[in-house]
Amino acid sequence: MSSNSAYEDLAVRFHRIGVIGDALGILHWDQATLMPDGSAPARAEQLATLSVLRHEMLTQPEIGDLLEASGEGAGDDWLPANLREMRRTYLHATAVPADLVDARSRANAACEMEWRSARTDNDYKRLLPSLEEVLRLVREVAAAKSDALGLSPYDALLDSYEPGARSAAIDVIFENHAAFLPGFLAEVLEFQASLPAPVAPQGPFPIETQRALGRQLMRTVGFDFKRGRLDVSHHPFCGGSSGDIRITTRYDEADFTSSLMGVLHETGHAMYELGLPEAWRYQPVGGALGMAIHESQSLLVEMQVCRSRTFLTYAAPLMQKAFDGSGPTWELDNLYRLYTKVEPGFIRVDADEVTYPAHIILRYRLERALIGGDLSLADLPGAWNDGMKALLGIMPPDDALGCLQDVHWPGGDFGYFPTYTMGAIAAAQLYAAARRDVPDLEANISKGDFAPLMAWLRTHVHSQGSRVTGDALLTAATGTPLDLAGFQSHLRERYLS
Amino acid sequence: MSSNSAYEDLAVRFHRIGVIGDALGILHWDQATLMPDGSAPARAEQLATLSVLRHEMLTQPEIGDLLEASGEGAGDDWLPANLREMRRTYLHATAVPADLVDARSRANAACEMEWRSARTDNDYKRLLPSLEEVLRLVREVAAAKSDALGLSPYDALLDSYEPGARSAAIDVIFENHAAFLPGFLAEVLEFQASLPAPVAPQGPFPIETQRALGRQLMRTVGFDFKRGRLDVSHHPFCGGSSGDIRITTRYDEADFTSSLMGVLHETGHAMYELGLPEAWRYQPVGGALGMAIHESQSLLVEMQVCRSRTFLTYAAPLMQKAFDGSGPTWELDNLYRLYTKVEPGFIRVDADEVTYPAHIILRYRLERALIGGDLSLADLPGAWNDGMKALLGIMPPDDALGCLQDVHWPGGDFGYFPTYTMGAIAAAQLYAAARRDVPDLEANISKGDFAPLMAWLRTHVHSQGSRVTGDALLTAATGTPLDLAGFQSHLRERYLS
Repeated sequence: MSSNSAYEDLAVRFHRIGVIGDALGILHWDQATLMPDGSAPARAEQLATLSVLRHEMLTQPEIGDLLEASGEGAGDDWLPANLREMRRTYLHATAVPADLVDARSRANAACEMEWRSARTDNDYKRLLPSLEEVLRLVREVAAAKSDALGLSPYDALLDSYEPGARSAAIDVIFENHAAFLPGFLAEVLEFQASLPAPVAPQGPFPIETQRALGRQLMRTVGFDFKRGRLDVSHHPFCGGSSGDIRITTRYDEADFTSSLMGVLHETGHAMYELGLPEAWRYQPVGGALGMAIHESQSLLVEMQVCRSRTFLTYAAPLMQKAFDGSGPTWELDNLYRLYTKVEPGFIRVDADEVTYPAHIILRYRLERALIGGDLSLADLPGAWNDGMKALLGIMPPDDALGCLQDVHWPGGDFGYFPTYTMGAIAAAQLYAAARRDVPDLEANISKGDFAPLMAWLRTHVHSQGSRVTGDALLTAATGTPLDLAGFQSHLRERYLS
Repeated sequence: MSSNSAYEDLAVRFHRIGVIGDALGILHWDQATLMPDGSAPARAEQLATLSVLRHEMLTQPEIGDLLEASGEGAGDDWLPANLREMRRTYLHATAVPADLVDARSRANAACEMEWRSARTDNDYKRLLPSLEEVLRLVREVAAAKSDALGLSPYDALLDSYEPGARSAAIDVIFENHAAFLPGFLAEVLEFQASLPAPVAPQGPFPIETQRALGRQLMRTVGFDFKRGRLDVSHHPFCGGSSGDIRITTRYDEADFTSSLMGVLHETGHAMYELGLPEAWRYQPVGGALGMAIHESQSLLVEMQVCRSRTFLTYAAPLMQKAFDGSGPTWELDNLYRLYTKVEPGFIRVDADEVTYPAHIILRYRLERALIGGDLSLADLPGAWNDGMKALLGIMPPDDALGCLQDVHWPGGDFGYFPTYTMGAIAAAQLYAAARRDVPDLEANISKGDFAPLMAWLRTHVHSQGSRVTGDALLTAATGTPLDLAGFQSHLRERYLS
């Protein structure tokens, strides 16, 4: 067999695997948004069956043979990069036996359903048995991947979310930032105390109006509603399938900001997905890079841009108009102070830009201990609360405001959390580079014109797919690999001046 | 291999095939209800890929070997019936090559999307190329199945919608009824002209109120919203997956009846699906019988029950209350005359119970000619209009009110239409038997209590799955196989007294 025909055969197989992933994306989205509760067992059956099928296709011995016969690939660098990603995917998949993939998919789906009501009822004990099962299976997966990849069990999980990321490197960045935070936070709180206290506009803010404003600003950023939707789910996410990107939010009639900024955050994710290279759709190299770069796109839109004074110059009048607001509460200065207000709190998804990394560092430490067997799930609530106290000086009054708040662990995602803060760091870096490269970038944003920024991101990030690693992409776009100093400069600039 | 272990192996394989069918059900539902237009190509890719996969699994040579090794099966009659259905399914599937399944799925999806706008724009010419492709592929399928099953090409298609149905038998029933109709219709029109003319309540009827009333009456019939949903689509249908039944409707602010009766119709379908035997879920014998019995369940709820004076005794006050209606328009007698009003019209889904079979007989004749090659699609609009003139004495003013009105042919469904009228006949038969068997059945319905009727249907129809053929089921439940006389008696009783 020629290396060309071996590659062509692989491309057909991976295309099919990619399409099944898209079908799974829609079924997951439906499960989280519209599916009736009683349908959970049947949906778990569908998700498990398609996941197993995909896994079977990916782990057929022929794939290994074809990869061997394909060599390194010729032509421009896309084809060799596609082969590299095929190999990486194959290695991750073959490490885990099919029955474990099946059991894990079922356990995750069951636990995620249980979590919905356990969180509402603040009942961690009820969740515990199904969460134990999820963790038991994740640890089996971690052990299997650890053997196959020659990594520690935790790093083996991490690598599937962020290729090449290692906890040793994250430790350095996180410990550096954990050391920076307490002093910086104290300075920020002191500085903000010297300013007029921001006043939150008073609701109620009708959900229909919130939805309309969210959709309007999604269009401003560049979202195309012919290629996606905005809906409601317990935990906001960006999902769907290639070219059909579905983001979700949740609404609170007393506060429109949380949902609106959440929508803009997910829109950043969606713009990445919608900008991936169409020529490589369904191939591994055509997919998004790891979760850190993905998060950099959402945080760039939400944190770097949409909470800036520049963007609020454009958006504040739209908010006033939508909610029929007037007076000093609705003025730019107040809104800017409101959207950059720093205050330690219990809920990660409501956290401000400064305290957010503390939430991540807590979860990172806890999940490493859970995977390593150094912490039992029975002891998780206590460890969580102690960690919050130590990092942010506050103690959650109950588990709903503590260890029950996130869907990630019930859904089986361990090794995902650190990518949020890696993404925040990359976002600061990329936005600084875009401002250097593109004339009048911020002047355009202050007029609601995102086209120049999106064109830059399309060129330097979205259209690159998985052609190069995250650090190579950042180096090409900004001049350096992931760089904490840039993020800390951004924080100082925004929060101390 | 023992016949037992061969059967067990088959059961595992068919379970997986059934689950993939469920995933397809949700993806189809999403396509028709919520999917953004721009996502059509990607969705077509997903539907085609899963259809091909399912077809590959069903046509693996091992299935044939295992069927041979399984013999006839032992135990109660469910297991042998499951083997019989496995064989039938296998025979239908192996008749059609995988690339044809794939091409057909793509062509149907593309044509269905095209149809949406062609119908809106009344542009049959624009639809023609994609519809030609759909028909070309259906005729290839019919030829392949004809060879494999030893049936005529049209009967080979028909058999996949209604096992065992043959056009020779339908010809007799339809020609009998076509002969009955003109005289009967004239009598009915004369009789109704002697009554006070029914007056339609004046709208607008807010869509939100229509939705709420529809949901209320769905609950009355017995629909469980923990196991299904009600949404909006161009063409109403009952879809979804096992235990997650999703029905759709469309709303018209000027007329609430069309949507409401449509919702009750689809609820009848849904009750059948929700009542299928759980112990045989995902196995061929656990699925619904052919489309004729399926339609009997929707027509029993809509036509036999919900347009009766008995049910309207209960429902009329609810309608008055929902829409704040008062006066003679909203009284039972007027509403009953309105909901049993007979009037030849262009649109099948809006047709009354008397003229509906004429719409079906027209489509049945045309699709037989299209499949047989006796009619070209270029000539369809003319043939359609001539047929309407001959059968109902009216001529559609444009194709939107003529041959563009239904999704069936653009979606690739040829051989489906006759099952609607077979279902109407079966519905009359089953409801008469239920009234004979169940004391106070109608008294309970007049109080909004459907439980006794649903219990009878659950026992005699829903829980039977595909254990026996349609005629055997009707014989066990009513004493005779499909019987046109009962339907004609029902029509005489309702429309001439």
